[in-house]
Amino acid sequence: MPGVEGGTLYPEAALRRFTVALFEKVGVPPADAARTADNLIEANLRGVDTHGITRVLVAYIRRIQYGLMKPRTEIEVVRERPSTALIDGHNGVGQVIATRAMELAMEKAKRCGSAFVGVLHSNHFGTCAYYTMMAAERDMIGFCITNGPPAMAPWGGREKRLSTSPISFAVPAGEERAFVLDMATTVVARGRVVLYEKQGLPIPEGWAVDEEGRPTTDAAAALRGLLAPVGGYKGYGLSLAVDLLSGVLTGANFGGHFDGTLFDYDRPPADVGSLFAAIDVDAFMDVPAFKKRVDQALREIKHGERAPGVERIYIPGEIEAESAERRRREGIPIPEEVVRDFVELGHELGVPFPG
Amino acid sequence: MPGVEGGTLYPEAALRRFTVALFEKVGVPPADAARTADNLIEANLRGVDTHGITRVLVAYIRRIQYGLMKPRTEIEVVRERPSTALIDGHNGVGQVIATRAMELAMEKAKRCGSAFVGVLHSNHFGTCAYYTMMAAERDMIGFCITNGPPAMAPWGGREKRLSTSPISFAVPAGEERAFVLDMATTVVARGRVVLYEKQGLPIPEGWAVDEEGRPTTDAAAALRGLLAPVGGYKGYGLSLAVDLLSGVLTGANFGGHFDGTLFDYDRPPADVGSLFAAIDVDAFMDVPAFKKRVDQALREIKHGERAPGVERIYIPGEIEAESAERRRREGIPIPEEVVRDFVELGHELGVPFPG
Repeated sequence: MPGVEGGTLYPEAALRRFTVALFEKVGVPPADAARTADNLIEANLRGVDTHGITRVLVAYIRRIQYGLMKPRTEIEVVRERPSTALIDGHNGVGQVIATRAMELAMEKAKRCGSAFVGVLHSNHFGTCAYYTMMAAERDMIGFCITNGPPAMAPWGGREKRLSTSPISFAVPAGEERAFVLDMATTVVARGRVVLYEKQGLPIPEGWAVDEEGRPTTDAAAALRGLLAPVGGYKGYGLSLAVDLLSGVLTGANFGGHFDGTLFDYDRPPADVGSLFAAIDVDAFMDVPAFKKRVDQALREIKHGERAPGVERIYIPGEIEAESAERRRREGIPIPEEVVRDFVELGHELGVPFPG
Repeated sequence: MPGVEGGTLYPEAALRRFTVALFEKVGVPPADAARTADNLIEANLRGVDTHGITRVLVAYIRRIQYGLMKPRTEIEVVRERPSTALIDGHNGVGQVIATRAMELAMEKAKRCGSAFVGVLHSNHFGTCAYYTMMAAERDMIGFCITNGPPAMAPWGGREKRLSTSPISFAVPAGEERAFVLDMATTVVARGRVVLYEKQGLPIPEGWAVDEEGRPTTDAAAALRGLLAPVGGYKGYGLSLAVDLLSGVLTGANFGGHFDGTLFDYDRPPADVGSLFAAIDVDAFMDVPAFKKRVDQALREIKHGERAPGVERIYIPGEIEAESAERRRREGIPIPEEVVRDFVELGHELGVPFPG
């Protein structure tokens, strides 16, 4: 799980207020600031610190300050059919664009049964799971993919051509927690390597190769090199499918055309492309019957016989949901070096960091 | 690639005639026999012998003879919305049901922009790619997933609870070949282990574990044991997503509830569940512009710098398309022991095996 355990624990509410205030200071309207903060804090609560304020908050603020991302998001539906839409995000805040895209997919799915909504001229939008869970909460199945700056080579290649290409599905359950899959098509997410590098730790073998294509355990070398696709050519294939559907189909940037990462502030806007889908469960089966079946399917897996040495079988999303319960109670850990960044940024913008 | 190279080469047309004739002999109407044969022979041409006549033809015929699969397929749309449908296949021939499901998804996508069609009470239907390629040929993006008899444990478990859960995407291109991904969420497809076992060959490490959960290179032990998920918990997560969407959502069989495999003739009908989707490219972008972008994306990957020792970078589906060109010309290899099965079956039904 791409989380950090070190650092001081801060109450969720305090970090949320700090985050909202920073976004408002750089011109993000209050409702959009609240939405964006909710997405980031939710990632931290779920233990996905790579997509929480820990890693991306400073970058988001800087990108707005440097004019690389517009604080006021203007969304335009540029092409539309009953069960599809293409949204131009006009380089607004990724979370605001993605939320609107999933909402539109759900509205259309309520009317038609299912829908796909694509997005271009968007930005980094946090975790995909945040949006697919919106669907699951409304008795729909959610699907979300996105591209981004390349971090992976094609199978057999040595140049960065594909992003980590995350894929998320969420399926509502009854008494059980929703099934929430959110996976990069690399062995690990790039942000996880960044966290290792920030903490000066070596990465496990198999995660990445260096600039020459040689396997490495040096996090800094891995960041200059390439992430390995999960399952070799299969992860490569999935990643390319994600790029064709979220980048090429939407008219957004794709492949190796992204110039710089989230953390490069001297490049053009990212022009991220994404694709969202919602399937109304009721279009296939009465919702109570479906939820009963999902509960049964998940329980049969959870309570099955375990391999030697395994204490528990997890359903995708369970570890994250339990992390959220714990961190909501105990607080969110922020590593010392990140606290320093936050204190400095808060000082600069007149928003004191809590504690 | 799950193909065989050993055996005698037979012309495609002769094998196709033989296959059609066998299906007709056991009561499959001519059009359905032709469709099913086309699906199986196409798999052989593409080098995917695990899903061609090589492995499944005898089983299909036996299942019909033993009353486990109905030769006359009666399809019923049991739930419908503008961009969704649920089809009851009433235990007809998998290929006939799946073809109709993808056709319906495409009709709906033409009208609405996109559509999902689910299927229950279906059977083994060959490769998923066959159906997604139907969409790509009509300027749509195709998606197909299916469940089936379990062959994989959940991550941390040791009981069969999930099938190989194949996932296919096809994306049309312009001058380049279509992108066609069709992957099992196990390291390899079960059928590939069957082919090794049939030829008495050991399987590579990492493909499977035996009944006790220990890694094995013995194909027979692997078939009694479990296939390993691709990328560990990620493959497990994808596989469970596939089962929830294709099995649980459709009302079909799911998880560990399948009783026996395609090759067990003393069990109840399979009740396979599947999900098909089509996205009309024109709902997002003018088709010529899209195809130009796909060509560019694929070429940039194919012609990128290669890792040391790599002769060529492949796009998913390229190896299969080149195999089809070659085998259409040179013939389809059928291993000796399979030829013997075919001769015997042909003798029984009064359809002489060619050559």
